[in-house]
Amino acid sequence: MGKGGMSRVEAGNEENMAAWLLGINTLKIQPFKLPSLGPYDVRVSMKAVGICGSDVHYLKHMSCAGFVVKEPMVIGHECAGIIDEVGSEVKNLVPGDRVALEPQITCWQCDRCKEGRYNLCPDVKFFATPPVHGSLANQVVHPANLCFKLPDNMTLEEGALCEPLSVGVYACRKANVGLDTNVLIVGAGPIGLVTMLAARAFGAPRIVMVDVDDYRLSVAKGLGADDVVKASTNMQDIPEEVEKITKAMGAGVDVTFDCAGFNKTMSTALGATRTGGKVCLVGMGHNEMSIPLTPAAAREVDVIGIFRYQNTWPLCLELISSGRIDVKRLITHRFGFSQKEVEEAFETSARGGTAIKVMFNL
Amino acid sequence: MGKGGMSRVEAGNEENMAAWLLGINTLKIQPFKLPSLGPYDVRVSMKAVGICGSDVHYLKHMSCAGFVVKEPMVIGHECAGIIDEVGSEVKNLVPGDRVALEPQITCWQCDRCKEGRYNLCPDVKFFATPPVHGSLANQVVHPANLCFKLPDNMTLEEGALCEPLSVGVYACRKANVGLDTNVLIVGAGPIGLVTMLAARAFGAPRIVMVDVDDYRLSVAKGLGADDVVKASTNMQDIPEEVEKITKAMGAGVDVTFDCAGFNKTMSTALGATRTGGKVCLVGMGHNEMSIPLTPAAAREVDVIGIFRYQNTWPLCLELISSGRIDVKRLITHRFGFSQKEVEEAFETSARGGTAIKVMFNL
Amino acid sequence: MGKGGMSRVEAGNEENMAAWLLGINTLKIQPFKLPSLGPYDVRVSMKAVGICGSDVHYLKHMSCAGFVVKEPMVIGHECAGIIDEVGSEVKNLVPGDRVALEPQITCWQCDRCKEGRYNLCPDVKFFATPPVHGSLANQVVHPANLCFKLPDNMTLEEGALCEPLSVGVYACRKANVGLDTNVLIVGAGPIGLVTMLAARAFGAPRIVMVDVDDYRLSVAKGLGADDVVKASTNMQDIPEEVEKITKAMGAGVDVTFDCAGFNKTMSTALGATRTGGKVCLVGMGHNEMSIPLTPAAAREVDVIGIFRYQNTWPLCLELISSGRIDVKRLITHRFGFSQKEVEEAFETSARGGTAIKVMFNL
Amino acid sequence: MGKGGMSRVEAGNEENMAAWLLGINTLKIQPFKLPSLGPYDVRVSMKAVGICGSDVHYLKHMSCAGFVVKEPMVIGHECAGIIDEVGSEVKNLVPGDRVALEPQITCWQCDRCKEGRYNLCPDVKFFATPPVHGSLANQVVHPANLCFKLPDNMTLEEGALCEPLSVGVYACRKANVGLDTNVLIVGAGPIGLVTMLAARAFGAPRIVMVDVDDYRLSVAKGLGADDVVKASTNMQDIPEEVEKITKAMGAGVDVTFDCAGFNKTMSTALGATRTGGKVCLVGMGHNEMSIPLTPAAAREVDVIGIFRYQNTWPLCLELISSGRIDVKRLITHRFGFSQKEVEEAFETSARGGTAIKVMFNL
Repeated sequence: MGKGGMSRVEAGNEENMAAWLLGINTLKIQPFKLPSLGPYDVRVSMKAVGICGSDVHYLKHMSCAGFVVKEPMVIGHECAGIIDEVGSEVKNLVPGDRVALEPQITCWQCDRCKEGRYNLCPDVKFFATPPVHGSLANQVVHPANLCFKLPDNMTLEEGALCEPLSVGVYACRKANVGLDTNVLIVGAGPIGLVTMLAARAFGAPRIVMVDVDDYRLSVAKGLGADDVVKASTNMQDIPEEVEKITKAMGAGVDVTFDCAGFNKTMSTALGATRTGGKVCLVGMGHNEMSIPLTPAAAREVDVIGIFRYQNTWPLCLELISSGRIDVKRLITHRFGFSQKEVEEAFETSARGGTAIKVMFNL
Repeated sequence: MGKGGMSRVEAGNEENMAAWLLGINTLKIQPFKLPSLGPYDVRVSMKAVGICGSDVHYLKHMSCAGFVVKEPMVIGHECAGIIDEVGSEVKNLVPGDRVALEPQITCWQCDRCKEGRYNLCPDVKFFATPPVHGSLANQVVHPANLCFKLPDNMTLEEGALCEPLSVGVYACRKANVGLDTNVLIVGAGPIGLVTMLAARAFGAPRIVMVDVDDYRLSVAKGLGADDVVKASTNMQDIPEEVEKITKAMGAGVDVTFDCAGFNKTMSTALGATRTGGKVCLVGMGHNEMSIPLTPAAAREVDVIGIFRYQNTWPLCLELISSGRIDVKRLITHRFGFSQKEVEEAFETSARGGTAIKVMFNL
Repeated sequence: MGKGGMSRVEAGNEENMAAWLLGINTLKIQPFKLPSLGPYDVRVSMKAVGICGSDVHYLKHMSCAGFVVKEPMVIGHECAGIIDEVGSEVKNLVPGDRVALEPQITCWQCDRCKEGRYNLCPDVKFFATPPVHGSLANQVVHPANLCFKLPDNMTLEEGALCEPLSVGVYACRKANVGLDTNVLIVGAGPIGLVTMLAARAFGAPRIVMVDVDDYRLSVAKGLGADDVVKASTNMQDIPEEVEKITKAMGAGVDVTFDCAGFNKTMSTALGATRTGGKVCLVGMGHNEMSIPLTPAAAREVDVIGIFRYQNTWPLCLELISSGRIDVKRLITHRFGFSQKEVEEAFETSARGGTAIKVMFNL
Repeated sequence: MGKGGMSRVEAGNEENMAAWLLGINTLKIQPFKLPSLGPYDVRVSMKAVGICGSDVHYLKHMSCAGFVVKEPMVIGHECAGIIDEVGSEVKNLVPGDRVALEPQITCWQCDRCKEGRYNLCPDVKFFATPPVHGSLANQVVHPANLCFKLPDNMTLEEGALCEPLSVGVYACRKANVGLDTNVLIVGAGPIGLVTMLAARAFGAPRIVMVDVDDYRLSVAKGLGADDVVKASTNMQDIPEEVEKITKAMGAGVDVTFDCAGFNKTMSTALGATRTGGKVCLVGMGHNEMSIPLTPAAAREVDVIGIFRYQNTWPLCLELISSGRIDVKRLITHRFGFSQKEVEEAFETSARGGTAIKVMFNL
């Protein structure tokens, strides 16, 4: 295998293609020269890459959450693949291993890294966050310690889904969801759904989901929400909707995840959460928010922020491979890695509608 | 002493006078009939009672933070006194003991009480929060376990100041201020000042305070702030003020206490706090807030709310009696307990200006 | 119903019988005069009472864990029943309600109670811990806030089993067992088994149990342990047994519960737990222990102690009624409340063998 | 300076001398070839190196705490110096900077490193822990992120003392010492003393120290212990000594640090600590311990282990430079870096007596 690996390297360097974001609504598959393989790196043939809302946002606006694409950039960060080659110091992986990739490379020299909050490293290099290239490509080079070997019973697609699931897992961990935590989730998009799956796995006895869209709510129910509440986009409806939520929960809401991040969703979250509970802000709809923060703070409803995740891959592998979380059901569409299919896939994801998770098979 | 105590009881029940809030700007000293002394209660002759901003707010508006005064109510809750009589089951106190009073009586039957967050008890009875009477009176009856014996080297005024100090102590405890926590405090009123004194005692190596008022800032410096920053009330000035704060701190802000609670102060707090830090909302200026919450949450700046305090009196006694905190310097004005002086005292407190803490000696 | 209740009270007071511990191996059913019903109390007809190891220990030795029976004492503390009468201030319960009883009455005046660690209250009154009477009786009077209403789908026996289950639930909570906590349990007696059931519910992905007894290990497997390891009582075998445990776990042991508490079990626990993990000492076999504590401490293996439990009944009700924990399977023997059956029941429990949980139906 | 630095590099590589541990009681100053300077490394001229008890233990036994010296090894790990040269990627340091060195290099790839407990990294390389060379040498090469720039008002000796102080600081942090933590320290050797200085800085209102040696106790008092208790080495004296400790504390002991680690000291620690308190085992006297663990665990006295420290240097610099901790007073003896003085210094440290901290000035 070593020899075959070597020959594939050479080929890889010549033929490696990636999906480049070149401008608004402009994605092109073009050659991408791999960086050299360091002693602690591995070279991975990408096999499954999912599309995230942020990918679509970059395509539509050349920016996302304050990050601006100034130079052409390879897109994609939800990914899994097969090891082609390992660096000289890599001990735990060998060519042929199937791995899920954690997409953030951090410095391990700053205070945040050293205290275990490496997701807050100011020098983080994250797939497809400018100016760092992403992973929708035939091959990538990545640190071995960020490549997690898949158990035999997990597919590469499930491996790629560890990335969005990590958002839900990290949110639940930071909000300390447990066996006696009644959970409200506002927003039933992909992130709301992975948060729901995670909250269920963390033991939440009752989960209620809120959305403005009937289809999404039906998906939420199908995936395991105990009850759902249809909301409007009208601020005046909040008191009534909070009442519906309370009735649907049948108890106090201990933790609310706002997976939308708008004035209305956050106001609903603050109003619906019990005294002494927590609201975790996951979505990023509005930057500036108009919300009744003071009355909530005076009931010691704390507002917790999350940024990506840390130390979640091992747990995601465990949760998926043990069957405690079924992420496969999130995949609604699959595409190949051709120019035409890449365009179609992003259009599908951008359209929303019945699309939840759109996946590339390379 | 028991006998003397008894005769004072009888006298007390006849002569006990209290400061009644009867309407907007209307406080009258009138008789107040003491409740009977239960087996676990003590009867206390009040000796020192401070005026809190909430007392003034009730006087000016007959309401505060959502609580509305519908019936005449005795005002006052920052207090200390001398035990006159103890109930049959009281073991740790005797008549003559000087005590500081924690003003909240909770149910000890609900989930919040049982888990140690008794300040969130839905059935709390708090001095001078309607419909519960306060303690600006010659005598009160109170549970013995909420009366904390003063060390010999503490004055009754210092005992009364355990109440406002408790707000700062609890805020610092909940925000986990320690030896490596650089602290920013926005708002240099009485609560900002006790929070500063507490943060210093909790070990904060550097404390910067922000206010719109030069006099308050000079008081803050005099009481121990390492540096101060003068702010405007103009939202446009936030970026520049955050820069000044950063320079004054000479390091990242780990924890910010917003002791004002306005759009501008909270926006400043969110902007000035380092990635991974915390903002603790103590003040209650605006109910509805317009703030850049999402960018802060995406840097994992958590927003912590506090409601009053719990389990703070023993620590306050320790901090004051050991000299680690000097609260006496907060007292700027003293008054006796006559109709005229009560009115004058509240006017003094309401005027602000050089008045920080206004104290009654009964 | 009130009237019926009253007539039953009178009857109750005349006819109320209880199982008195009079001396070593001497239990007699004799009349027990109920205390008067306070305003916050309820009177409960006991319907299901389990036998605990401590009950048997008292019977055999007139003492347990340092507590000595000096006066005749009613035995029993794992119990559930039906409300007969409620005190004047009781709002959440009515006669006819089926309830599980938390057996510890605490002072709510001390530091431990106020900080939420009420199980450490120095003035706790605990059923059947001398000199406090227990609950193996036709009726008891108990504070309403310690009587938890059973969901309709729970039996009274399941209600009684909330008490032993609480030990496991509290141990898992204090040791912070979660979705990525591999758990080792040393000792597969009743407490080891409830700890295993709790650890499973808390999300432990893999649980290995150790015991010296084949039958117990087979029960452990039947109730859900992933693997079991047979141990000897010989200290020399520890290294080999630790190796077997490691192999059975297939990963590091994050948390070990020593549910036996002997030199050998604790030494095994310390040796088998991974660097940075925790050992929770639940069992109380030896008082003085000879153990390799220093090498474990130098790997930051912390040793956590637990005393009974706090705030566990609501969670136990949730876990049992939702089907996440099946405690019924622990009941191996049932007896009625006659002199002969009480003796037989205690003999059965004391004999061990196939007896796990012995239950009275009154 | 760059040029001078370069010429010193060349000289350094030729002339670099180090104190080699060659066998029991055999230390020789001999040439030590520096490793090459990596891009993230710095080369440091050592200026101050302290002797630790573990250094002496290695000299006397060629082993310490399970680590065995099999090949000649350079000794020393408490150190500070001046930067001579920096690697190509080093941004925060320049030649001439005075720095304190954290002596542990970890992998940043394992679970422990990633979760912020890097002191538990299984692949740690620690100065003078075999087979890794130490820092009692003219020069060392070390990662830049483990070299902390000294504030102008700190001496190089104070920089070197950050290492032993880190043990105390980390112990206090892990035991959560704060403003209301009464602290007992058993063992008044160098580690007991730095723990005391740290506990004081962390806010402990009252600190009592125990030792068998009058001189050590007098030093403890001189450095700030509130009271001291003289102990015997006789197990029978424990109850009486616990009583003396309780009286000296005048309150419950919230946290005990056992800085000796013997059967007697740990038994005293367990017995003296209040219900719900903690014992932190710092010393490593006995491996196998005979202690009354069960009764302590049943009072929820948790036993916490510590291994070295993590993330302590910035705080140590702050505590020393702000004057909150005065470590200089620990230095009792100073020596130069010659063969004769090295031997003398180690003899002095090994003799104990009035020697607390023995320091080399290079």
